[in-house]
Amino acid sequence: MQCLIEGNSRQGENESEILIRGVLLSGNLNKSYRFLTGIDSPDELKKLSFDELNILAQEIREFLIDIVSKTGGHIASNLGVVELTIALHRVLNAPLDKIVWDVGHQTYVHKILTGRRDKFSTLRQMNGLSGFPKTEESPYDVFNTGHSSTSISAALGMARARDLKGESYTVSAVIGDGALTGGMALEALNDAGISKTNLLIILNDNGMSIAPNVGGLSRYLSRLRVRPLYYKTRESVQEFLDLLPCGKTFRKFVHKIKTSMKSMLMPSMFFEDLGFRYFGPIDGHNIREMVNVFEHVKTMKGPVLVHVVTIKGKGYEHAEKNPDFFHGVAPFEIETGLTKNSGSENYSQVFGNRLCELARDNKDIAAITAAMPDGTGLRSFKELFPERFYDVGIAEQHAVTLAAGLAMGGVKPVVAIYSTFLQRAYDQILHDVALQKLDVVFAVDRCGIVGDDGETHQGIYDVSYLYTIPYMTILSPASPNELKAMLDYAVNEHKGPIAVRYPRGSGKEFDRSDIPLEYGKAVVVKEGNDLTLIGVGCMVSQALEVAELMEKEGISCEVINPRFLRPVDDVTILNSAKKTGRVVIIQDVIKNGGFGSFVTELLYNGLSGKVRTLNLGLPDIGIEHGERNLILRKYGLDARSIKESILSKMEFPENGGL
Amino acid sequence: MQCLIEGNSRQGENESEILIRGVLLSGNLNKSYRFLTGIDSPDELKKLSFDELNILAQEIREFLIDIVSKTGGHIASNLGVVELTIALHRVLNAPLDKIVWDVGHQTYVHKILTGRRDKFSTLRQMNGLSGFPKTEESPYDVFNTGHSSTSISAALGMARARDLKGESYTVSAVIGDGALTGGMALEALNDAGISKTNLLIILNDNGMSIAPNVGGLSRYLSRLRVRPLYYKTRESVQEFLDLLPCGKTFRKFVHKIKTSMKSMLMPSMFFEDLGFRYFGPIDGHNIREMVNVFEHVKTMKGPVLVHVVTIKGKGYEHAEKNPDFFHGVAPFEIETGLTKNSGSENYSQVFGNRLCELARDNKDIAAITAAMPDGTGLRSFKELFPERFYDVGIAEQHAVTLAAGLAMGGVKPVVAIYSTFLQRAYDQILHDVALQKLDVVFAVDRCGIVGDDGETHQGIYDVSYLYTIPYMTILSPASPNELKAMLDYAVNEHKGPIAVRYPRGSGKEFDRSDIPLEYGKAVVVKEGNDLTLIGVGCMVSQALEVAELMEKEGISCEVINPRFLRPVDDVTILNSAKKTGRVVIIQDVIKNGGFGSFVTELLYNGLSGKVRTLNLGLPDIGIEHGERNLILRKYGLDARSIKESILSKMEFPENGGL
Repeated sequence: MQCLIEGNSRQGENESEILIRGVLLSGNLNKSYRFLTGIDSPDELKKLSFDELNILAQEIREFLIDIVSKTGGHIASNLGVVELTIALHRVLNAPLDKIVWDVGHQTYVHKILTGRRDKFSTLRQMNGLSGFPKTEESPYDVFNTGHSSTSISAALGMARARDLKGESYTVSAVIGDGALTGGMALEALNDAGISKTNLLIILNDNGMSIAPNVGGLSRYLSRLRVRPLYYKTRESVQEFLDLLPCGKTFRKFVHKIKTSMKSMLMPSMFFEDLGFRYFGPIDGHNIREMVNVFEHVKTMKGPVLVHVVTIKGKGYEHAEKNPDFFHGVAPFEIETGLTKNSGSENYSQVFGNRLCELARDNKDIAAITAAMPDGTGLRSFKELFPERFYDVGIAEQHAVTLAAGLAMGGVKPVVAIYSTFLQRAYDQILHDVALQKLDVVFAVDRCGIVGDDGETHQGIYDVSYLYTIPYMTILSPASPNELKAMLDYAVNEHKGPIAVRYPRGSGKEFDRSDIPLEYGKAVVVKEGNDLTLIGVGCMVSQALEVAELMEKEGISCEVINPRFLRPVDDVTILNSAKKTGRVVIIQDVIKNGGFGSFVTELLYNGLSGKVRTLNLGLPDIGIEHGERNLILRKYGLDARSIKESILSKMEFPENGGL
Repeated sequence: MQCLIEGNSRQGENESEILIRGVLLSGNLNKSYRFLTGIDSPDELKKLSFDELNILAQEIREFLIDIVSKTGGHIASNLGVVELTIALHRVLNAPLDKIVWDVGHQTYVHKILTGRRDKFSTLRQMNGLSGFPKTEESPYDVFNTGHSSTSISAALGMARARDLKGESYTVSAVIGDGALTGGMALEALNDAGISKTNLLIILNDNGMSIAPNVGGLSRYLSRLRVRPLYYKTRESVQEFLDLLPCGKTFRKFVHKIKTSMKSMLMPSMFFEDLGFRYFGPIDGHNIREMVNVFEHVKTMKGPVLVHVVTIKGKGYEHAEKNPDFFHGVAPFEIETGLTKNSGSENYSQVFGNRLCELARDNKDIAAITAAMPDGTGLRSFKELFPERFYDVGIAEQHAVTLAAGLAMGGVKPVVAIYSTFLQRAYDQILHDVALQKLDVVFAVDRCGIVGDDGETHQGIYDVSYLYTIPYMTILSPASPNELKAMLDYAVNEHKGPIAVRYPRGSGKEFDRSDIPLEYGKAVVVKEGNDLTLIGVGCMVSQALEVAELMEKEGISCEVINPRFLRPVDDVTILNSAKKTGRVVIIQDVIKNGGFGSFVTELLYNGLSGKVRTLNLGLPDIGIEHGERNLILRKYGLDARSIKESILSKMEFPENGGL
C-alpha cells in the first residue's frame, strides 16, 4: 500500500500528492456520472427536477459504496441520509444557511455535494479529507463534530449569535435518534424549546444508535414512526378549527378537542411539550416530500423539529441487513460485503472474550456499554449473560453512575467505553465512583492514536485525565496476554476504581510479557546499562525497537514495561535510572500531566535531578487523522525519530549511572 | 468564633470535641420537642398518627431554622421536603430500603430523622456532619451525592444489583425538577423506563433549580402541576373501563378513548412515554396523601414516578419569598432573614460587575450560567442585558457547547460555572471549544478549597484537568483587581479558549498587584535571594506570609505570582530559580498534573535538575468539608506548616543560586 507524502499542515498541501492514494485506490473516481459529475456546489441541486434528484441519489450511493469499500469508513449512516442531504441542500442556501451535523460521520454525502467529490477518495487518510466535518476543510462545514449529541447546543448557539448580530439565515442541526439519548442533546432541547430563536432541528430517525437504539425515548419514537403524515392531518384539523367562531370558552373547548385529536392520532407529543413545533414523521427517502416540508418550516418562527424516518444502510443490501457491522467498517468487498479478516484477535475481542470467561465463574460481574456492544467486544457477553448486560444508549455519564450504583449494591461492573468517549463521564468517574472508592472497572478501549477517525476521536487524554482522579489505579497492557491478566486482576482482586486502558487493533506477545502480574510492579523487559526506555502500553514494542536501533550505535538499553501507570513502580524505575543515568518515557498520549510528568517528578525528587530525562509524547494540539504509523512519525514517536531525539538531546560519553 | 479541634480522620473522632462548636452555637439543641426529641430512627415515625406527624413537621422546621440560622447551609430546599421526608421514611424501611437523594443538600431532615439530630449543630463544620449524604456517616445514607442529577442512575444501578443478587427491598430516588434538566438524569430516565426493575422515583417539583427553573421541561411540569389528582381520576377511569366487555377491536377503541381522556385531563405524558408509571401531582406538604400514594406504589412492578409538588422554603416566610437567596445561605438572623454582610465584594461579585462594565462597551459579549445567576454574580448582567444572558438550567455540558456555537457565530461568550461543576463539561471544553480554538471565556468560580460544602464541591481539580486541554490558556488572579484585569484581557483581547479561575469569598490587594497584565508574564511580587516561592492565585498571599516567617529565620524569599498558569512564564521562573537555587510551588489544588508538575519539569529540563524543588498541594484523596483555614492546616498548606515543610526538606547552608 502506497503511503501519502507527509505534510506538516493542511495549508500548502499539494493536491496531486493528496490524491495519489485516492487515484490508486479508486478506478471509478473519474467515472462520469450523469448528474453527480456536474455538482460542484449545492446550487446545482436547485436546477434539477425531482426525478433527476432521485437519479442523483442513486449515483451518490454507487459512488459512496465504490469509494468507501476501498477507504473504509462510516458507510451505513451515509447511505441512510443521501436523500435527506440532497433535500436539505436543495432547500437551504449553504454556506450562508448553516447545517450542523451531529456526530459528523454522516457528512460524506454533504461533502460530495459541497465541492469535495474529487477529493473524496482521500477520505480519512493523512492530509486527505476528514471523515468528519472540519471548518478548516470547507466553508460548508460550519461546526466540527465527532462525539455525539452536540449539534443542538451548537446550532442553538449559532442561531442566538445570528439574532444578536441582527443577521438573517437558517440554522439547522441534523441529529440521529441515537444521539438524542445523549443527555446534552436533551439539555439543549430543553433550552431551545423555550427560546424564541428560529432553529430547525432535523431528527434523522433510523432506530439505531450504532447498535439498535435502546430506551424509553426510542420506544416512544418507534410509536411515532408508525403514524404517517401527522403533520398533514394536524394542519387540516387546524384549518378546519380556524374556520369556527371563537369565543373564549369555545376556544378552550377547541383546545381540548385538538389535544384529544392529537392524542387520537398519535402518542403524546414529547417535542411539543418541550416547546418545539413538530412535523413528521416523513419519509427520509422521499426527496419531494422532504423538500416540501423543509420549504414550509424554513420560514417559521421559533424552534421547529422535523422528524424524518430513514433506513440505515439504504440501498446497499449488506448494509441494510447488518447496519451495526457497516456502521464504521474497514475496506470491504462490494459483492459479498466481507471485510478482509486481519487474522488475529484485536484488543476489544481479547477483552470481550476474557470477560465472558471471568463472568462464567463470577456471577457478580456485570458489563455496561454506551451503545457499542460490537465496538467494545461485548457482543458475546450480551448473548451469554443478557441479565447482567446493560446497553444504556449513547449515555456515558449515566453508564458510569449506573456502574457506581451497581457497585454500591455489591455487583462488580465493568464499563467498556472508548477513551475519547469516556471524557464525557469525567465528572461521574470522579464524583460518583472515585470519591466513594467504589469497585468499578473501566475498560478503556481505543487508547492512544486511533488513526483514521482523527482529531475528535484520539484516545490521547485518558492517562492525564485519569491521573487527576483520586484513588484511581491505571493499568496499560503491552500485549494481549497482559490485557487478560490485568482484567483478571481488576475484576477479581482489586478494590476501588481501576482503569485498564488498551489500544485499537491487535498486539503481539513479546519476551517476558508472561511474567505474572503483581500489584504496582513494573517489568524489566530487557536489561541494559546506558539508557532506560519506559514504554507506555503498546509503546513497549516501540521501546524495544528503539533499543535495537540504539544498540547498533553501541548504546545498551534497558526497557521497562510499567504495567501500572498508577501507582508507579518507583523502585524498579529508580533502580534502573540509577544504573543507566538516563531515562526516556515513550507514550502515544499527551505529555502534559499523567505518567510522564509523574515519572519526571519522581526522578527529580528521588535522584536529586541527577538523571537525564526525556518525556516523549504528543504536544498540546489537536492530532489529525491518518494511519497510525504516519501520525507517530509526524510527531516523532516512531522508533527512528525517537532514536534521533535521544541522540540529539542526551550525551553518551560513558556509562551514565549514578 | 471557636474553632473545632482538628482531627486527622473521621475514625476515632472524639464526640465531645465535635460538639463543642455546635453546643456553643445552639442554645436550642437541647430543647425538648414533644415529638422530635423521641425520634432516633425512622421506625419511630410509624408509631405516630398523621396529626402527630404534622406537629413533628413543624418541630423539625423550627429546629432546622434554629440551627441553620447559626451554621449556615441549604435551608430552603430542606424546609420544602420536611413532609416528603417524613412520609417516605414512614412508608419505607430504611436502611434496608434505600433512598438516594439527588444533589444531597436536601438531606437535613433525613439526617435529623435517622439518628443524627444530636449532632446536627455540627453541620458542615470540620469533623462534624456533612451537608450532604455520606455513606461513611450513617447506614441510612446509601449513596454520596453532591453534584446534581446523579440519583436516578445510582438508584437504577442499586435496583439492578438487588435483582441480580436476588434480594428484595425498595430502591428510591428523590430528585428535584431542577436536577431533571441535567442531561444525565434524562439519560437515566431513558434507561430506567425500559427496565423491568422495580424503582421508585420521587420527583420533588418546586419549580426551582437554584434559581427558578428554566426550559421546556419546566414549562411542561408547570402545566402538569395545575392538574391535581390525575392519578385518582385515571384510576377511576381504569376501573370503569375494566368493567366493560373487551373484544379486541373494542379494547383498541377503549385504549384510544383512554389516551384521549388522559389528554383531556392533562397535557401529554412525558414520563409514561418513557416507560414509567406516573402518579401525581400530589401535595408535597400533605403527609397523609403522600403516605397513601407511596404505600400504593411501593409494591408495584417496574419503574414508577411519583410527582410531588412542594414549596421551596415552606414555613419560613423569608425563605418562601426569596428561595434563591435561601438556597445556600450564610448564618442569618431568624426574624429579619438577613445575613451578616461581610463588607467587601466577593470574587463572584467582582466578576459579575466587571462583566457588566465590559458588556456596556462591547455588544458582542454574552453570558451563560447553568442555573446559578446569583451564585456566579451574574444577576446584574441578567437584568441589564437580558437579550444576551442565557440561563440554561443545570446543564453544564450544553452551556459549554452553546458557548462554542455562539463563538462560532461571532459572539464572545463568557461561561460562568463553578470549578467543581465544570468537571461535567470536560468533554465539551475539549471537543467542542478547544479543538476548534474557539474564543470562549470560562469564568471558573469557587476554585480551590471551598470549605463547608466539602468533598463533592472542592474546586481542586480544575488546574489539572484544564491542563490536559489543548490550546487552553489558564489565568489565576491573586487579588480582585487582578481578576478584573484578567477578565478584560480574556474578553477583549484573547483569541482561543481561556479560563480565568478564582476562589470563593473575597480577596485583598497587595503590593504590585496593580502591575499591568501582560500575556504570559508572571510578576515578582517580592524580591529575595535564598528561596523562590510561587503561589497559585489566592495562595500568593499565603506565599507572602510564608516569606515573612522564613525571613525571621534569616532566609530571604522571592515571591512570584505566575498569573498565567498556562502558558507558564518560564523566563521569570528560571531566572528566579537560578538566583535562589530553591523553588517551592504553593497551590490549594491537587499536586498531580497541572501547574506544579509543569514547573517541576521546566526546572528539571531548564536547569538540569540542579534546583531543589518542592511541589505543595493537595494529595490524591477526597478532601472533606470544614472551614478553609482548618483544611489548609490539615493538609500542611497554612503558612506555618509550609515553613516547616520547607525547613525539613531543604537545606539552607548558604545562598543556593546556580
